[in-house]
Amino acid sequence: MAFRFDLIQGSASGPRLGRFHTPHGEVRTPAFMPVATRGMLRGHPPTILRPMGVEMVLANAFHLYARPGIETVEALGGVHGMLAWDGPVLTDSGGFQVFSLGALDRVHEGGVRVEHPVYGGVVDWTPELAFESQRRLAPDVAMVLDVCPDRPGDRDQAAWAVERTLAWARTQRRLHEKHGGSGRGQALFGIVQGGVFPDLREACARELVALDFDGYAVGGVSVGEDHAARMAGVEASTCWLPVDRLRYLMGVGTPLDLVEAIARGVDLFDCVFPTRAGRFATALTWKGRLHLLNARFRDDASPLDPDCPCEACQSGVPRGALRAGFKAREILPMLLVSQHNLFFLQDLLRRVREALAGGRFEELREEVRCRWPPREPGPRPERARFKPGARPPRR
Amino acid sequence: MAFRFDLIQGSASGPRLGRFHTPHGEVRTPAFMPVATRGMLRGHPPTILRPMGVEMVLANAFHLYARPGIETVEALGGVHGMLAWDGPVLTDSGGFQVFSLGALDRVHEGGVRVEHPVYGGVVDWTPELAFESQRRLAPDVAMVLDVCPDRPGDRDQAAWAVERTLAWARTQRRLHEKHGGSGRGQALFGIVQGGVFPDLREACARELVALDFDGYAVGGVSVGEDHAARMAGVEASTCWLPVDRLRYLMGVGTPLDLVEAIARGVDLFDCVFPTRAGRFATALTWKGRLHLLNARFRDDASPLDPDCPCEACQSGVPRGALRAGFKAREILPMLLVSQHNLFFLQDLLRRVREALAGGRFEELREEVRCRWPPREPGPRPERARFKPGARPPRR
Repeated sequence: MAFRFDLIQGSASGPRLGRFHTPHGEVRTPAFMPVATRGMLRGHPPTILRPMGVEMVLANAFHLYARPGIETVEALGGVHGMLAWDGPVLTDSGGFQVFSLGALDRVHEGGVRVEHPVYGGVVDWTPELAFESQRRLAPDVAMVLDVCPDRPGDRDQAAWAVERTLAWARTQRRLHEKHGGSGRGQALFGIVQGGVFPDLREACARELVALDFDGYAVGGVSVGEDHAARMAGVEASTCWLPVDRLRYLMGVGTPLDLVEAIARGVDLFDCVFPTRAGRFATALTWKGRLHLLNARFRDDASPLDPDCPCEACQSGVPRGALRAGFKAREILPMLLVSQHNLFFLQDLLRRVREALAGGRFEELREEVRCRWPPREPGPRPERARFKPGARPPRR
Repeated sequence: MAFRFDLIQGSASGPRLGRFHTPHGEVRTPAFMPVATRGMLRGHPPTILRPMGVEMVLANAFHLYARPGIETVEALGGVHGMLAWDGPVLTDSGGFQVFSLGALDRVHEGGVRVEHPVYGGVVDWTPELAFESQRRLAPDVAMVLDVCPDRPGDRDQAAWAVERTLAWARTQRRLHEKHGGSGRGQALFGIVQGGVFPDLREACARELVALDFDGYAVGGVSVGEDHAARMAGVEASTCWLPVDRLRYLMGVGTPLDLVEAIARGVDLFDCVFPTRAGRFATALTWKGRLHLLNARFRDDASPLDPDCPCEACQSGVPRGALRAGFKAREILPMLLVSQHNLFFLQDLLRRVREALAGGRFEELREEVRCRWPPREPGPRPERARFKPGARPPRR
């Protein structure tokens, strides 16, 4: 069997230690996937990944469909060839990107009409097209196309999203079966929606489980709600998922969110947070965030994080030079800090796995809670209002 | 003695093989310096340099003066600390940058009034200030502040530039002496100007040699003239320089220019050409230039240069992915191609040194002439006209 999730420790709820087997190798879980939306990390060659402990990478099917196009990715050897990465790859169906691409976005019964991000014109991004695109891109794991509400507290919106998500999930599950299921080398994961409403999440999860996907994702979180609400949404989803399948929390994120979601039974994560924070001069360390534009770093000759063994910190480029470079809009500081941040999260996940194995998870969880207290977002920027048939961003 | 140039092979004219000793180590010449204008390479950590054979790096004194400022660079451990590079460093005085910063540029008897590129306002960038700034930045080699005409065929402009350059050279040579000369750990190089006029170049070179600098640069070339005129300018300068001092050709460049200048007795080079070409999707190879935006690379699954052992080519990222990434304005393709180009030029210089040692330089020169035929620039964009007291860009 091409895919298998071995639960090494833990149960249906609570933190879990596992091993996810794929045609391109194994992934020790809990695991964090760096994001290569368009088939490449932002500014980093794939050669940095193995040394920092990365075992699985995420790309985005919709973006690759838009450019360079499915045929070209096929010619380059599929998403693995394009990425120049021979480990496991998961592609998102592009739901989030579709819903965040702006005014032309329209959800209808059978899909989403979205502006082509490269050539203009309208693409009808349907469950069938998302499935077929991913089948040809050939990642190890494909995600179903779902509908992600942007206001998780709006019950009408959340219920409608669950209804569409389930209808599309049935379609894609059938297509998956028709193409031989995961036995032909690609797993398909369902996505639980339902906003902040436990009953909606339960209904969504139960029906997805009845459809018997190869794994399950929790979607529709990290879309602006606070940490407590986010974790409530996670818990209301994972508790209905089967013990023997991987659980993937989409678009999360910060050290606190990671550890708290792991405590609620999540096995896999992805987020642009480490690279995006790096590009905006924020370094993640075991002493908390460092904002390198802060004037106190001007004359600081010490490396980014003196305690860190990563290549960026070991390059010896001093904090003062990084600060000056950020101010001069040089490329190097962004790259060094984002590389460090990727390492930091991989290191965090490694510590989590070691702590789980050693029975010390609660201690580590407490340390992360101290170092990374919840930071609540301010008021969200105004977005397009909910209208039947029109829905914006997720996560 | 902190500095010494050992001529291993060759004479005053013709190709030379040498070794330049500095307080931060030796440089095998002919050598090419990657450019770290603001104290960092564009997008590359200093750790890439040694493995590709780089032995000396260039930074820009005026840019570092403007940001982060001389005091901050001192606090970071001088230009070596800022760069996180413990090998030899040369700083340009900033002449080229000063003359290219636009409308406020004004040359007067005692210096250049130039707009501060960060804070606005006017900086009077004088020979004294350029010298003192470099003394404190602490590179191994400082360059004199010179005046570089932008139209090398304009005799009035060239003569005036030589006059100013020599007056300022005398001032800076005196300051160098006053501070103990190169014995205190910093060499000072003079710069030969004179446009396309051999008699002006001769006069400038003779007087600089009489002032006895630690080394000599050829300036005012590669400012839009064709290859033949450029080489004539080089030859008209190097033939007056002493055999036992390093010769440095500023802002050059292409494989053809490098090899032809080496044939005319140049030992050291710098240029943004490899990194800039890389950012604009042009890869340098032994089969000539590759323009990666070309449609023929769309479905090309081969690496950037299949024959190249550099990290970028060995990363395995296929040409088709590089092309797609360039189109999507991703950062990675720029970095990989510019890293490859830096490697390519280091590899070219290594081959030159080996060919010189093995008596095969003329064969290599012929190969480079075949692979890299002269490409003449089109008409230059209109620039501010020459006015006494106002002069634009050099190189």
